[in-house]
Amino acid sequence: VLSGHLFCAAAYERTERNCSLTPPYLPSTAVNTSIQLQELRAQMLPLNVSAYIIPGTDAHLSEYIAPRDARMAFMTGFTGSAGTAVVTQTKAALWTDSRYWVQAERQMDCNWELQKDVSVISVAEWLISEVPAGGNIGFDPFLFSLSEFSPYLPHNRILKSIPVNLVDQVWKDRPQAPADSLTRLPDRVIQRTWQDKVEQIRSLMGTNPYQPTALLLSALDETAWLFNLRGTDIPYNPFFYSYTLLTLDEIWLFVHTNRVTEELKAYLSASCTGSLCVQLKSYDSVRQNLTAYVAQSDVKVWIGTEYTNYALYELITPQEKLITSSYSPVLTTKAVKDETEERILREAHVRDAVAVIQLLMWLEKVVPAGNVTELRAAEYVNHCRSKQKDNRGPSFETISASGPNAALAHYSPSEGTSRRLTVEEMFLVDSGGQYLDGTTDITRTVHWGTPTDMQKEAFTRVLMGNIEISQTVFPSGTSGVRIEMLGRRALWEVGLNYGHGTGHGVGNYFGVHECKVWSKENDFGIRIEDIAVTVPVHTKFGHNFLTFDTVSLVPYDRKLIDTSLLSAKQLQWLNNYYEMIRRLVGPELDKQGLQEEKDWMLRNTQPFTEAGSSASVCSSSLTLIALVFALLHII
Amino acid sequence: VLSGHLFCAAAYERTERNCSLTPPYLPSTAVNTSIQLQELRAQMLPLNVSAYIIPGTDAHLSEYIAPRDARMAFMTGFTGSAGTAVVTQTKAALWTDSRYWVQAERQMDCNWELQKDVSVISVAEWLISEVPAGGNIGFDPFLFSLSEFSPYLPHNRILKSIPVNLVDQVWKDRPQAPADSLTRLPDRVIQRTWQDKVEQIRSLMGTNPYQPTALLLSALDETAWLFNLRGTDIPYNPFFYSYTLLTLDEIWLFVHTNRVTEELKAYLSASCTGSLCVQLKSYDSVRQNLTAYVAQSDVKVWIGTEYTNYALYELITPQEKLITSSYSPVLTTKAVKDETEERILREAHVRDAVAVIQLLMWLEKVVPAGNVTELRAAEYVNHCRSKQKDNRGPSFETISASGPNAALAHYSPSEGTSRRLTVEEMFLVDSGGQYLDGTTDITRTVHWGTPTDMQKEAFTRVLMGNIEISQTVFPSGTSGVRIEMLGRRALWEVGLNYGHGTGHGVGNYFGVHECKVWSKENDFGIRIEDIAVTVPVHTKFGHNFLTFDTVSLVPYDRKLIDTSLLSAKQLQWLNNYYEMIRRLVGPELDKQGLQEEKDWMLRNTQPFTEAGSSASVCSSSLTLIALVFALLHII
Repeated sequence: VLSGHLFCAAAYERTERNCSLTPPYLPSTAVNTSIQLQELRAQMLPLNVSAYIIPGTDAHLSEYIAPRDARMAFMTGFTGSAGTAVVTQTKAALWTDSRYWVQAERQMDCNWELQKDVSVISVAEWLISEVPAGGNIGFDPFLFSLSEFSPYLPHNRILKSIPVNLVDQVWKDRPQAPADSLTRLPDRVIQRTWQDKVEQIRSLMGTNPYQPTALLLSALDETAWLFNLRGTDIPYNPFFYSYTLLTLDEIWLFVHTNRVTEELKAYLSASCTGSLCVQLKSYDSVRQNLTAYVAQSDVKVWIGTEYTNYALYELITPQEKLITSSYSPVLTTKAVKDETEERILREAHVRDAVAVIQLLMWLEKVVPAGNVTELRAAEYVNHCRSKQKDNRGPSFETISASGPNAALAHYSPSEGTSRRLTVEEMFLVDSGGQYLDGTTDITRTVHWGTPTDMQKEAFTRVLMGNIEISQTVFPSGTSGVRIEMLGRRALWEVGLNYGHGTGHGVGNYFGVHECKVWSKENDFGIRIEDIAVTVPVHTKFGHNFLTFDTVSLVPYDRKLIDTSLLSAKQLQWLNNYYEMIRRLVGPELDKQGLQEEKDWMLRNTQPFTEAGSSASVCSSSLTLIALVFALLHII
Repeated sequence: VLSGHLFCAAAYERTERNCSLTPPYLPSTAVNTSIQLQELRAQMLPLNVSAYIIPGTDAHLSEYIAPRDARMAFMTGFTGSAGTAVVTQTKAALWTDSRYWVQAERQMDCNWELQKDVSVISVAEWLISEVPAGGNIGFDPFLFSLSEFSPYLPHNRILKSIPVNLVDQVWKDRPQAPADSLTRLPDRVIQRTWQDKVEQIRSLMGTNPYQPTALLLSALDETAWLFNLRGTDIPYNPFFYSYTLLTLDEIWLFVHTNRVTEELKAYLSASCTGSLCVQLKSYDSVRQNLTAYVAQSDVKVWIGTEYTNYALYELITPQEKLITSSYSPVLTTKAVKDETEERILREAHVRDAVAVIQLLMWLEKVVPAGNVTELRAAEYVNHCRSKQKDNRGPSFETISASGPNAALAHYSPSEGTSRRLTVEEMFLVDSGGQYLDGTTDITRTVHWGTPTDMQKEAFTRVLMGNIEISQTVFPSGTSGVRIEMLGRRALWEVGLNYGHGTGHGVGNYFGVHECKVWSKENDFGIRIEDIAVTVPVHTKFGHNFLTFDTVSLVPYDRKLIDTSLLSAKQLQWLNNYYEMIRRLVGPELDKQGLQEEKDWMLRNTQPFTEAGSSASVCSSSLTLIALVFALLHII
């Protein structure tokens, strides 16, 4: 047994670094960062900064960033979407959360220590231990939000704002700023013109008791939403580099002005009388223009503290000229979809279901025969999406994961790590598309062979959680964290759980993570994810109650559902859902002439009948638990 | 119809003040506060403070306070348990939450404005509007916790700490400090001696990464728990005025030393070798002794920021000598009951059930016949409790409320407001007892006539929520706010809800609200409240999962339960619970020779059988909704 174990260990190449060996073991995926560290340290010396902070974000505190903003990745080798790096003359440390620890150990060389406590306090404590009292800690004020910034203030250390980014000084082949033209949304996907939106926001400024005279929009989706404009600067998100200063009688749009076509200029000055006239200003002039605005008497600028960068915040002085809230009225207004948005997003989901059904049908045919990898599956679904009307590419990097890879919440296959799919393992695909009329995000977990009882039970309980949340009725204004336990309850009953959040908001041709995620950690294995719209519901006694209406339209793997675990009400929900898939996706499949897909869909949406209770015997292999700990995403 | 309506209005005396009339209308319950306000303002003048803040708490930030600490009530007339008052030379304002608005309008005269937004920001904004820039705002540093204090800092106004309380200067007949002796708990209700507890807490100090040399205990339950001592200084809570400074080798107990008997002195120096020797210090010397301790080099004092007062906090300088957490390790250790505590609290609940059963049986007999008031019912249950072994009085002011009074979450009857109970109205009694071996808190809602369908449905859905929470399985470490929606879900389904929290922690012969309440607002009508112990539960796949074990042992009103709404699992839970009441309370009733009570208990705990669905027709009187909006408390 022992030698067998050793044989197993030897049969796989070690994929993570081991810095405790001499010499250190580095996998082929690790990046040598010695040169960039040496050059950055040389930049730090004349400025007399003992430490330099490198966040993984951009000047708009975006969730996804353009390659030219991937400074943390350039310095560390680590390409995960969340992290903070700090460099001193002798040390270099990266903080990232548990979703990314394995990836960081694969990508970083031994110049870097991995810090696993991602609280701001942990960074501050590290800085206090590494920077002598009286020492300077350098940072780029564009890359810190006001709310992130405050807790960084350690005792007796001086935070030094350095407006020129030091990483950019040593990054020779940093990608250029994008130059392609911005585009406007077609009228058919718009209910409110930009003029309507400007007037709506100005009226919200009027009702703010602190009486702001201007609203500073610095998140990229704020400006994109306000003007019904889109761009391609950021991967997966149709945004463009921009700020807006909206005053009560003027509109200043800060963009790379060469990207605004004559047609767009006309569109933006279409109503150029009085206060509905957009003045184009250079993207790089935002600090200069904001300074000039604030210098006037009787002005008050409203900002969202969660994402406005420190470089702009520090210009708004004295404090009497500053008005703060966590989010701007643009973000809170945008979160509530209007009728057109709600109607058209449902249409986008019908077309998106066609693409996902095509993937699942194709995998069912080709996996048993042969040579399909995770990467190939990811490419296939996005290829199918690209053939659908109004598709504008994927809405995030596709997660296509089989067997143990499914345990990594944010695993995406690459040429190096892509596993071959087999009928022996479960497969999870979490993908989505950008469409002119909506943004999709759907996860299905499937098995092409014979799932174990444990897999079936875990999957069914994840599905039960999905159904329980979907059919819950709750008062308007209830926060997600208060109902998300319904997604976990059926798992808790048998001692299972998942370690990350349950839901997030989604935009219309926008970011796939629109509102704050309810909570966040990581975990492993089975995931079902549907998008749902909140809709008013009639109740016996009360008013202002809501429920969810699922708009994702792809059936679940029948093989993984143990109907004996479902309540009658859950079974009813499932059959109603399948009936809806037939009603909405059926005609679209007909229209696209996809008869085989239609047959597949009909087969997979047959109504379930109430099962007798089947004694669900647990698989004897308890190690399985680690692989099938369950996840679930909804909303 | 109109004249009938006017007749109704005239038939009742107005119970709330109306300051918009000339002269203002004041009910007989309102207190004339002109003299104390005049005298307080005279105190403020020489100190040059434009405003003076009067919190409703004591130096230990206690939830319940002794009469001598009821400064807010003395100044305002308002006797509710939560509020903050502020006085300027021309204005006086009280902030209290919605539970107390009606009470405040009944008790305050027109010197006072009632502010309904209880956020600290609201107080700060009022101060900014009333105090000129550069003006002083006076406060007593003993009455502010560190965490409350910080947000009070308004721009350009100076917060002036005044160590002598100004209200005390004008309060001529302020009650004296208590002088009665402290008592120690008998050995039979103790698992850990105070020496064991001191060693346990010191070991937690040793594992704190910041390496504290001392722990400052300023909440009254901290010192009482640590030394297994009790007192009678605070109504309903067996606490005594005290602080403790626990260092790694010394123990300083700050009390009114004349209250410590020779026997207790021996008890506290029972092991007086080395570091397990309690040094008694005068209660009033805490600032002086803390200052001396902090003056030493290499000391670090650990405090809980949620409740340590500013007068002690401000002594711990420089900041390097301060270590903070929200709660001290004493409070986090105390929240987890040991085996003895868990065993004996169950015994206390059995005896408490006898008293509540006696009340319910008695009311059933006497209400139809005659003249029972809310006040009489409250007195009766506490009289019954007083006859039970080891009872030490009620654990909070009994809420005994019928008809519309039940809508006031914290209503307690007084001679003036006490309603007569009738078979036409529902009755809610929320009461509890202190026992040497436990603290109880139980609510039952009953109807002695014919409840409406709406009342039955609302009650049953409140009960369903109670059951759902009771039987839920959840991972160890889950916070209450994540599961409390289970208490609401059955109500949400028909558009009902309640506007306050669902649960709170309970001590053993201690405060009835031990941990933070999960959330807090107010609302109306039906309430069921049981205490439950969290217990480990075996699950199919996982470890470290918990569930609740209900220890309150009184049946619910059968008349109000519509079993057709309950699921089979809920019905099963209810029958198991009733079986447990029979098993545990039955022998106690036998032992106490209470045959009539035993018969009543057996009648009221008969197993339910699954009902056919009864079409639950809604009462046509929709105004009922306001009265029966449902509450539920659990744990």
